[in-house]
Amino acid sequence: MIQTDILIIGAGPTGLFAVFEAGLLQLKCHLIDALPQPGGQCAEIYPKKPIYDIPGFPEVLAGDLVENLMKQIEPFQPGFTLGERADTIEKLEDGSFIVTTNKGTQHKAPIVAIAGGLGSFEPRKPLLENIGKFEDNGVAYMIKDPEVYRDKKVVIAGGGDSALDWSIFLADVASEVTLVHRRNEFRGALDSVEKVQQLKNKGKINLITPGEIVALHGEAHLESVLVRKKTTAVEDIKLEVDHFIPLFGLSPKLGPISDWGLEIEKNAIKVNTFDYQTNVPGVYAIGDINTYPGKLKLILCGFHEATLMCQSAYQRIFPDKKYVMKYTTVGGVSGFDGSKKEAPKAVVKAIE
Amino acid sequence: MIQTDILIIGAGPTGLFAVFEAGLLQLKCHLIDALPQPGGQCAEIYPKKPIYDIPGFPEVLAGDLVENLMKQIEPFQPGFTLGERADTIEKLEDGSFIVTTNKGTQHKAPIVAIAGGLGSFEPRKPLLENIGKFEDNGVAYMIKDPEVYRDKKVVIAGGGDSALDWSIFLADVASEVTLVHRRNEFRGALDSVEKVQQLKNKGKINLITPGEIVALHGEAHLESVLVRKKTTAVEDIKLEVDHFIPLFGLSPKLGPISDWGLEIEKNAIKVNTFDYQTNVPGVYAIGDINTYPGKLKLILCGFHEATLMCQSAYQRIFPDKKYVMKYTTVGGVSGFDGSKKEAPKAVVKAIE
Repeated sequence: MIQTDILIIGAGPTGLFAVFEAGLLQLKCHLIDALPQPGGQCAEIYPKKPIYDIPGFPEVLAGDLVENLMKQIEPFQPGFTLGERADTIEKLEDGSFIVTTNKGTQHKAPIVAIAGGLGSFEPRKPLLENIGKFEDNGVAYMIKDPEVYRDKKVVIAGGGDSALDWSIFLADVASEVTLVHRRNEFRGALDSVEKVQQLKNKGKINLITPGEIVALHGEAHLESVLVRKKTTAVEDIKLEVDHFIPLFGLSPKLGPISDWGLEIEKNAIKVNTFDYQTNVPGVYAIGDINTYPGKLKLILCGFHEATLMCQSAYQRIFPDKKYVMKYTTVGGVSGFDGSKKEAPKAVVKAIE
Repeated sequence: MIQTDILIIGAGPTGLFAVFEAGLLQLKCHLIDALPQPGGQCAEIYPKKPIYDIPGFPEVLAGDLVENLMKQIEPFQPGFTLGERADTIEKLEDGSFIVTTNKGTQHKAPIVAIAGGLGSFEPRKPLLENIGKFEDNGVAYMIKDPEVYRDKKVVIAGGGDSALDWSIFLADVASEVTLVHRRNEFRGALDSVEKVQQLKNKGKINLITPGEIVALHGEAHLESVLVRKKTTAVEDIKLEVDHFIPLFGLSPKLGPISDWGLEIEKNAIKVNTFDYQTNVPGVYAIGDINTYPGKLKLILCGFHEATLMCQSAYQRIFPDKKYVMKYTTVGGVSGFDGSKKEAPKAVVKAIE
């Protein structure tokens, strides 16, 4: 059982910054995210796209913002449960909560902060009747660890940036990469499309377009797929592969959280504007997943909400302690790893 | 008469960022600040000190944060009335406001956003009976334009960073710099103290410690000061100077704003948490100057408040328009100067 002070569900920018504000209060955090890496949408959906409305950054790539936040929270050593979706919550008699993921990992904390963005990102799956049988046995909808594919035969399906970028990446890792898309046209960054064209010309990527996967075969593990190529004539091609990775995009779903007994309005969790607590005391919702009068779904608003949430969480955990806020410029930042950052001190010194 | 959409009182980080958010809504801003340059405390009091709790910056110097914000708002061409304090507000029949500064500059706008931080920074003045006579005639408590002192004889009083840093700076500008402090010890950054020591050794700065200015003389303009040097014996030294700059620190005062008919609580302006509007419709208060349940005086909270304020201001100005928020990553940023920043577009392109 993982134990922490604040259990944060969702490791997007809001959840990550909450770790920093909690750390200033000496509270430890652990984050759960359905995606395989921290950063939420910023890391998974648009890491290379610029954001212009983060205060103090005239322009910052979403992926760089996540990197900066990871660096900022590093002294507070957050824990991560990645690639798992928070499924159930249980309130214990002592007022703390146990949150269990879809893979059975259990987390216990006195405070739960839901920073789930638009919900957990669920992959769009191809309609193949036996695909469930091969999930984790040759079929994956997200790439968690590219090393899994080293020297393997891989078929990727999809026509967007994910399909392009992973085909490029795996061309150097897998023994064979086949990219299948139902159109000839791909939609993505110009240099990704051009790079795939080059790799195809060099024979490093096999391209089958327009085409789609129509059947999966194998005993326990995936052994082959049937690709239907639809040019003037229809042609079925049997491909012997170890892995099939359909990358048809992710769609956010509020999912199991909607059954946690929280007040929901327009697919978002209702909170107050005092500390962004939900109708369940001890459970907060911050960032894009919450709603209140005047709510704007902006990253900078999530940062503010995370900060007020942490102050309130501190009061819940230590009802008798009076916390006096110190500015970081004055008090510095003391990490759980023993690190200490602080402004250079003024000296008092005579001039002779 | 200066006219604008949102008149912002206070050009600290919160006021500056409001310009950006207003600009996204195509609203123009003008800022008034008692200090001679934008940035508020960050620029005037601690420009060289690191801040650790700005989201996405593991560490940023306060002065650099201000520079970044100035760059971020540049496309929206804000106007500035600097070195003047907002003194009075008048509501016109059409619902708009006229704000007049202590120097008589008038500003008209349908929306007033008070982003005044801890109040306007008022200099601590030495107790010399005729000092008022010489203000703007040889006596200044802040340095607005260092060129005023070129080839002039200057005496600076004070023992902190401002006195040290300006003595160093003016040593290369003025014909003569005398630094007077009532102790031998100075309190400031180590390298500033050491630099003054070096300049003193080279004869570029005259140092009189422990000492203080006890009298000012001159006809219309300051002509000389009397310095009382207090070693074992007391010695009065007459110094012929053109300028006397006492740098005894700034202390923030809510000042005339407290007479604007706004609800005040604990030296701060009460606002709601929906749009940070005060009890006077059309007048908002954002950043450290406001108060509401859960309020934290943090820069990152001011950013959030500025953002919600702008949305509300837009609705007040255009009650019939429905604004649909677009993410900057999707919609880009269109400046009033004709500039346009936007994310590179995806292409749709066949791979042959």
